[in-house]
Amino acid sequence: MANTEPERVLLAHGGGGQLTNRLIRERILPSLKNDSLSELGDSACLDLESGSICFTTDSYVVKPLFFNGGDIGKLAVCGTVNDLAVAGSRPLVLTLALIIEAGLEFGVLEKILHSIGETARLNGVSIVTGDTKTVERGSADGIFINTAGIGVRLPGVHVGLDKIAVGDKILVNGTLGDHGMTIISQREGIGFESQLQSDCAGLAGLTCALFETVSGIRFMRDATRGGLAAVLNEMVENAAFGVEICEKDVPIKPAVQAAADMLGFDVLNIANEGKFVVVVSAEGADECLRICRDHALGRDAAVIGEVVDAQGVPLVELQTKMGGKRIVQMPYGRELPRIC
Amino acid sequence: MANTEPERVLLAHGGGGQLTNRLIRERILPSLKNDSLSELGDSACLDLESGSICFTTDSYVVKPLFFNGGDIGKLAVCGTVNDLAVAGSRPLVLTLALIIEAGLEFGVLEKILHSIGETARLNGVSIVTGDTKTVERGSADGIFINTAGIGVRLPGVHVGLDKIAVGDKILVNGTLGDHGMTIISQREGIGFESQLQSDCAGLAGLTCALFETVSGIRFMRDATRGGLAAVLNEMVENAAFGVEICEKDVPIKPAVQAAADMLGFDVLNIANEGKFVVVVSAEGADECLRICRDHALGRDAAVIGEVVDAQGVPLVELQTKMGGKRIVQMPYGRELPRIC
Repeated sequence: MANTEPERVLLAHGGGGQLTNRLIRERILPSLKNDSLSELGDSACLDLESGSICFTTDSYVVKPLFFNGGDIGKLAVCGTVNDLAVAGSRPLVLTLALIIEAGLEFGVLEKILHSIGETARLNGVSIVTGDTKTVERGSADGIFINTAGIGVRLPGVHVGLDKIAVGDKILVNGTLGDHGMTIISQREGIGFESQLQSDCAGLAGLTCALFETVSGIRFMRDATRGGLAAVLNEMVENAAFGVEICEKDVPIKPAVQAAADMLGFDVLNIANEGKFVVVVSAEGADECLRICRDHALGRDAAVIGEVVDAQGVPLVELQTKMGGKRIVQMPYGRELPRIC
Repeated sequence: MANTEPERVLLAHGGGGQLTNRLIRERILPSLKNDSLSELGDSACLDLESGSICFTTDSYVVKPLFFNGGDIGKLAVCGTVNDLAVAGSRPLVLTLALIIEAGLEFGVLEKILHSIGETARLNGVSIVTGDTKTVERGSADGIFINTAGIGVRLPGVHVGLDKIAVGDKILVNGTLGDHGMTIISQREGIGFESQLQSDCAGLAGLTCALFETVSGIRFMRDATRGGLAAVLNEMVENAAFGVEICEKDVPIKPAVQAAADMLGFDVLNIANEGKFVVVVSAEGADECLRICRDHALGRDAAVIGEVVDAQGVPLVELQTKMGGKRIVQMPYGRELPRIC
């Protein structure tokens, strides 16, 4: 075997032999190092403080791999951290499974892995086990990443759609549409895409603070694919209540709104990667808002609406800036391929 | 929107809107139904009996999607179940993440999902949460599947490379090379590929019986990518001991050996999906063998060798049928793309 290292991932790097070993030890582990991972078993053995956990998974297929404000690696950590966080748990451990297209440059792989390691450290989670597969050129698109995660449930937190009641307030922790419009604008090359930046961030610090301090939190969900519109529509589906939001209160950056207008999107349908929707009792809303605004990831938090009597027809309605009303529908799906 | 259902998965089915909802509710959930999954949150909330768990992940990119003895769905359940089983745990819950190439026929998807549901039921595990992404035609190859899993650790089980001692016996639970040679032979079309069948199976029933009954189990690993050779070489890496196995004792089906000879493979390097290697004390070996042979997935179990004094050079050596000795190396990797 020659001494010259290939500059790209080969199909053979997924064969389970010497090359796989070297790929993992030389290229993957250095960015992710922790004791549990270094044993390189196929399973991580963990002693959690409690068996009351949240368990989640997400695959990431975002295109392009690198974008303003993040990359597929940062996204793969934040997205899964956020799914655990909004469910009322403290994210603890992640798995990392890579599907790599043969031909991916090692430099690209290492940049992504560095981002994964850095984001995991920042968010207080450990990558405890993983898997690496390769497929032929043309059988994938660079790299796809799956992370699964476990979080320990916060004691006393009971959230769910069934906890929502008429009169509850609806908050978001900041401006909407940043992630999705950044990705779409970079793909389309609209000319001012450099003014847009993904909001990709791990929210567990903020959500844990909210759950631990505010009583009356009914429901929380991160507004990813399908955006705010999808979350609100999932809330009212089969519900006895409706939702009314005020357009003027929904925080949207001017550049995001401009890009959406130019490209013909409704920002309410656009994916976020650092935003949650929280439903909280009217009494708890002020404290919830205050805690958000005191946190770096909640500076632009706002109460955007409330839960209303459905009067038999559970809908999401928007009071427009012009004083009218329109129904916010569940997005159909076409506008958002490979946004995360 | 028209009433006619598309016959294939569309890119828009991954957009997070109405179409994603319909794909999940109409095509995915029916095969997998259980209470935890039906809530459709992004996380599953679980109350495990203990926080002492094993946690694992694997992506599956096998080609072809359907093969004699199984399919990518069966594999995706069994492979992750087995990673948990050999680590000394009882597999409990799985996540299911699909990356689907636009254009995949719904019929194919549903066949795979049916297989996943059936295999999960047979193995006593629940699919508790999932994720569905779509990518454009040409950006994946039909479907890639990731499953992550949690198992509850069996009390009193302590296995690991550091527990292995000179004199320990090495067993396998049956014939080797069946899965890999089935896949390779179907791809190559060697003419008698219909005589070959993957050994794809969930091993937790057998491994739990072993862990609960046999004292002296030191180490267990499923022999997937890289086959027996990879497991044994991982054992001796950085170890103070070596491994010696007897060719005549290694169970291999004649058709598998014939296919390997014809195509120029060493069966020891070939992937299995229903086989483990177990290292057990000399005193425990007979009981281990008896329990295996009493189980449907261990009929052809055999003691194939033992752990020997490395004398400074930890190697895997094979006593050949001809009476000679050869070193069994870690496979390089080239022979085994997309075997699982």
